[in-house]
Amino acid sequence: MSTDTADAQVRTIRVGLLGCGTVGGALVDMLGERGADIEARTGIRLEIGAIAVRSASKNRGGGATAGLLTTDARAVVADPDIDVIVEVIGGIEPARELILAALANRKPVITANKELLANCGQELADAAAEARVDLLFEAAAAAAIPIIRPLRESLLGEDVSRVMGIVNGTTNYILTQMTELGADYADALTEAQNLGYAERDPTADVEGYDAGAKAAIMASIAFGAKVAAGDVYHEGISNISAADIAFANRLGYQIKLLAIAERFGDGTDAAPYEIGVRVHPSMVVDDHPLASVRGSFNAVFVEGADAGELMFYGRGAGGRPTASAVLGDLIDAAGNRVRETYHPVPGGPAVPIRPIDDQSSAYYLNLEVADAPGVLAEVAGVFGAHGVSIRSMEQEGLDAEARLVFVTHEATERDIQSTLADLAALDAVHGVGTMLRVIS
Amino acid sequence: MSTDTADAQVRTIRVGLLGCGTVGGALVDMLGERGADIEARTGIRLEIGAIAVRSASKNRGGGATAGLLTTDARAVVADPDIDVIVEVIGGIEPARELILAALANRKPVITANKELLANCGQELADAAAEARVDLLFEAAAAAAIPIIRPLRESLLGEDVSRVMGIVNGTTNYILTQMTELGADYADALTEAQNLGYAERDPTADVEGYDAGAKAAIMASIAFGAKVAAGDVYHEGISNISAADIAFANRLGYQIKLLAIAERFGDGTDAAPYEIGVRVHPSMVVDDHPLASVRGSFNAVFVEGADAGELMFYGRGAGGRPTASAVLGDLIDAAGNRVRETYHPVPGGPAVPIRPIDDQSSAYYLNLEVADAPGVLAEVAGVFGAHGVSIRSMEQEGLDAEARLVFVTHEATERDIQSTLADLAALDAVHGVGTMLRVIS
Repeated sequence: MSTDTADAQVRTIRVGLLGCGTVGGALVDMLGERGADIEARTGIRLEIGAIAVRSASKNRGGGATAGLLTTDARAVVADPDIDVIVEVIGGIEPARELILAALANRKPVITANKELLANCGQELADAAAEARVDLLFEAAAAAAIPIIRPLRESLLGEDVSRVMGIVNGTTNYILTQMTELGADYADALTEAQNLGYAERDPTADVEGYDAGAKAAIMASIAFGAKVAAGDVYHEGISNISAADIAFANRLGYQIKLLAIAERFGDGTDAAPYEIGVRVHPSMVVDDHPLASVRGSFNAVFVEGADAGELMFYGRGAGGRPTASAVLGDLIDAAGNRVRETYHPVPGGPAVPIRPIDDQSSAYYLNLEVADAPGVLAEVAGVFGAHGVSIRSMEQEGLDAEARLVFVTHEATERDIQSTLADLAALDAVHGVGTMLRVIS
Repeated sequence: MSTDTADAQVRTIRVGLLGCGTVGGALVDMLGERGADIEARTGIRLEIGAIAVRSASKNRGGGATAGLLTTDARAVVADPDIDVIVEVIGGIEPARELILAALANRKPVITANKELLANCGQELADAAAEARVDLLFEAAAAAAIPIIRPLRESLLGEDVSRVMGIVNGTTNYILTQMTELGADYADALTEAQNLGYAERDPTADVEGYDAGAKAAIMASIAFGAKVAAGDVYHEGISNISAADIAFANRLGYQIKLLAIAERFGDGTDAAPYEIGVRVHPSMVVDDHPLASVRGSFNAVFVEGADAGELMFYGRGAGGRPTASAVLGDLIDAAGNRVRETYHPVPGGPAVPIRPIDDQSSAYYLNLEVADAPGVLAEVAGVFGAHGVSIRSMEQEGLDAEARLVFVTHEATERDIQSTLADLAALDAVHGVGTMLRVIS
């Protein structure tokens, strides 16, 4: 189905671009390549009116002609000839201040800035609501993968219970290499760095901060709650060994770094809603759709009461994939501008955050113990004392020791942590290996 | 991020529901269960104002209270107290006539009617554009899977080259049973019928008509072209044998019924755009994300120049999953109604359809031949005469015969069909088995 737009009057929307690095440069190129097609399909001509950069002398190449460059970002967000602002600077300041100024000037804003949204998203959403203009940020959660728009529009009436994703390509690449080649963590990280998938300082990726910011954004949209980066519990992948992965594979699981946003309760007075948001390595059962997401690909799995299981898969990082999501938002905001309307960020009543200690999971535990009679009974007694029920156990001989691998039934984090502490204190337990949450 | 809506004035939107079968009934139930949550998140109260049914005496159960039922659908679409129309009757008439009347009365319309959209989508889109109201149909392509909204909004600026999906749960269930249990087609079909996954007359599903209608809708939205059901080439799965599946698996492929919409050319005068839309069983290489979509699940794989590979996975059928997509559209249309705006169906210039004969693919062919010297040379000569290049060949002895299994390089459908005709005419060729297109 299509509407002939040839006869209709073409409207020009002038874009103020804040930042012109990898994503901004890709966006400029794409507008050059696709501008005519977009105009043919929408009747809107997207024109870059100004590009604010830190240094105007740096060579930008591509379509970013020098005449548009300025170092005065404040002038761009104040310019009455600029209709829409695209922010791809990244970081908190000056991005926050510039976006607030743009919104105050009633300019719609598109941002790819996950750090800013995860820390100050509520402030920005309030400012956009006050100004009655669009605040769009599809690119901030999983780059090219449309997940924000489906959550905030398609699934707004759905009773979403959990959003769970592989939202960091660096760590998924490392875990995939460890799985498929039996590589050590350190070697896989070095290779990811050499290929440009990981930064020289990989902390933000491998310790789960990046995934945590995305989890906060997705939780906020999925549940209409006010979730900030600081509300997210996170553990990274740097303590995962090739042996853990081999064990997991043998048991029928893949190890993935998952960002998980869950809603507990049913909204009644007896069971009021609570939100839990956490990032940690997880054992995902082989036939789960997330288990087969390989390499630097990302995917977000959504569970709804009526929609059932949904998954959104694609490229969660990179200049062009990120710019593609920005461009989709830009066309949306431009159309709304032409129709003199906007799409509000859906709200909702405040929902308390459930602390990690009170959240539940099944767990995988790995113990090195003395190979002696009575040890298993002693170990099992510790689980029992904390009310943690064992689903399966495997024993493997190691010289004079044995390795015990347990998968538990659902238990709270508090109980499993107490169990681990008591197990570590046993004389017969020589080492407590990696603990992983199990997703089935 | 959220906006406090407690203080804002709640707006009531009255919904006229046309049809109250599985999907309509589920929608009524969901509005009963979720109405308060939706109101808390959007400030909009969705209220069913009337339900048009064929027989008002039939017991509807659930929340569809008798006072709302009417057999006069025309009165519902004309009623000035009804703000939005949801059409879940199905079929061409009277759905078409009622939707056109609703649009003429400037009422936004949500429809889950794939048959109507695939045959008369352009007429409906034109009527919606004329009336400047929403025409939303997320549920018509893949039920709960958000694919229409991502295509028409998120990816509107993307250079989408191909949309390829498993969009019929019945056939995917049958093929999965054949693959995992080695079942025959007939047995798997019977089981699907007993489970309610397949109709008593399974033609629309197993011969690819249902998938074809969905392909036409997705092609129209992805490419802004005017694609109707009649433009879609289709073949079904009824001639796929357990042996074909075993062969495909051994070669590293899964057999899936795919709906494929492709855009050819680059839009220049030298290579103008053309669209190809087809449905047929395909061999999908094992590590392709579509290969692991099992049972009655659906998935749509989208390839874009900048977004890269995307996949959308979930439940493509069923009352609640379909009603979930309708509800998302309904909230969207209600919000637009309150803001006195709408979201136009994106248009685009007309694009010609490329006939199937001129489309290309790699192919899998399976021949029974005499087990005699010189046969392979003769067979290979036929491929060569039509310019079809062979990528791999496997030979297997069968009593006095041999089976030759070929996978070709890319060739046009015309050349492969001529090759097949000439092969069948060879004395040494005793049987030409299933021909399958190969997706890698």
